[in-house]
Amino acid sequence: MKVSELSRTSGVSVASIKYYLREGLLHAGTATASNQADYDGEHVRRLRLIRALIDIGGLPIASVRGVLAAVDDDSTVMHDAFGAVMHGLGDPPPSDLSPEIAAALTEVRRWLRRRGWKIQSNAPASYALAELIVTLRQFDFPIALGDLDAAADAAEGTAEFEVAFAFAKTDRTAAVETMLVGTVVYERVLAEIRRLALEAVSAKIQAKKR
Amino acid sequence: MKVSELSRTSGVSVASIKYYLREGLLHAGTATASNQADYDGEHVRRLRLIRALIDIGGLPIASVRGVLAAVDDDSTVMHDAFGAVMHGLGDPPPSDLSPEIAAALTEVRRWLRRRGWKIQSNAPASYALAELIVTLRQFDFPIALGDLDAAADAAEGTAEFEVAFAFAKTDRTAAVETMLVGTVVYERVLAEIRRLALEAVSAKIQAKKR
Repeated sequence: MKVSELSRTSGVSVASIKYYLREGLLHAGTATASNQADYDGEHVRRLRLIRALIDIGGLPIASVRGVLAAVDDDSTVMHDAFGAVMHGLGDPPPSDLSPEIAAALTEVRRWLRRRGWKIQSNAPASYALAELIVTLRQFDFPIALGDLDAAADAAEGTAEFEVAFAFAKTDRTAAVETMLVGTVVYERVLAEIRRLALEAVSAKIQAKKR
Repeated sequence: MKVSELSRTSGVSVASIKYYLREGLLHAGTATASNQADYDGEHVRRLRLIRALIDIGGLPIASVRGVLAAVDDDSTVMHDAFGAVMHGLGDPPPSDLSPEIAAALTEVRRWLRRRGWKIQSNAPASYALAELIVTLRQFDFPIALGDLDAAADAAEGTAEFEVAFAFAKTDRTAAVETMLVGTVVYERVLAEIRRLALEAVSAKIQAKKR
């Protein structure tokens, strides 16, 4: 298909498509004339992935590039590819930590060990969790890592299903892509469900008061 | 305290503080001289709230302004204030929907009714959920609203606790602020826990393969 049809099918503007081609996020089409190229279903899929990372995941272009490079690099075993993709979604760990965040990170790591979760020491999610705990305490939320065990048990249960679903894909790129889309989209799904639950519960309590 | 001390205590740069003052996100200090003002603990707290909305919630300045206006408007009953704050966190619902998203929105609303959740018709979270479901289906995830019931039950359980915790605050502004911080920060906490769970499960499966 021509670029105009690629734009219609994917819902991404021609200007954005050209930008992603220049930035190397989208692989070039097959040249059909000096200024024309032919695109296919793979391009539609890749464009949807780029838009999901930007619009849903909130990733800056540099991070999208890093994550897609990890998707495309088929020299790594599956778990390492997943790790590279997952780590690429977060901000890189800062080189120096405030004493408060360093203390919270120690708590997070102790909690992960107690749960038997093997997590790489440079995983952005550990640092992010430590920072979030410091923020909650600054706002006087009484939070201990143990309070998160129920949520962690639930996340572990759905993760077993999700990882198995991704590993079942015969194509390696499709497997990594599935893991990536699942991570970025499902965490937004859960966040929106939480917001709806909070509105519903608040409405119920308000109705009782009247 | 002077602006320099406010900056040190809150961890927000003087330039950002001045920007938030100009934009009306931070209320002015008490003037002590023609070009000096005195700030207090309320300013520190408000700055932390602004940073949480921007850094953790990923909100643009215009949305931060809207959400803070809802926090400060004490003419509304608590539930309406919560609603305004929660709705301010999401993008406003689009005026025209694609047929796919409109169909998914109908599914979402039917699901909400079945759950007995009273949600305002313009709640951004319903639209966001419909869009996310369309995205998942574009990537061939087999998803039905019923699959989200377990997550919704869990969210309802924690929401009961969270709303009660916020309503228990005697000060109205503190209650709305608590609800806001809880929403923005806890959804990131859950997202980071999900990422850690996925990494841990992937590591376990990889280890079994060796």
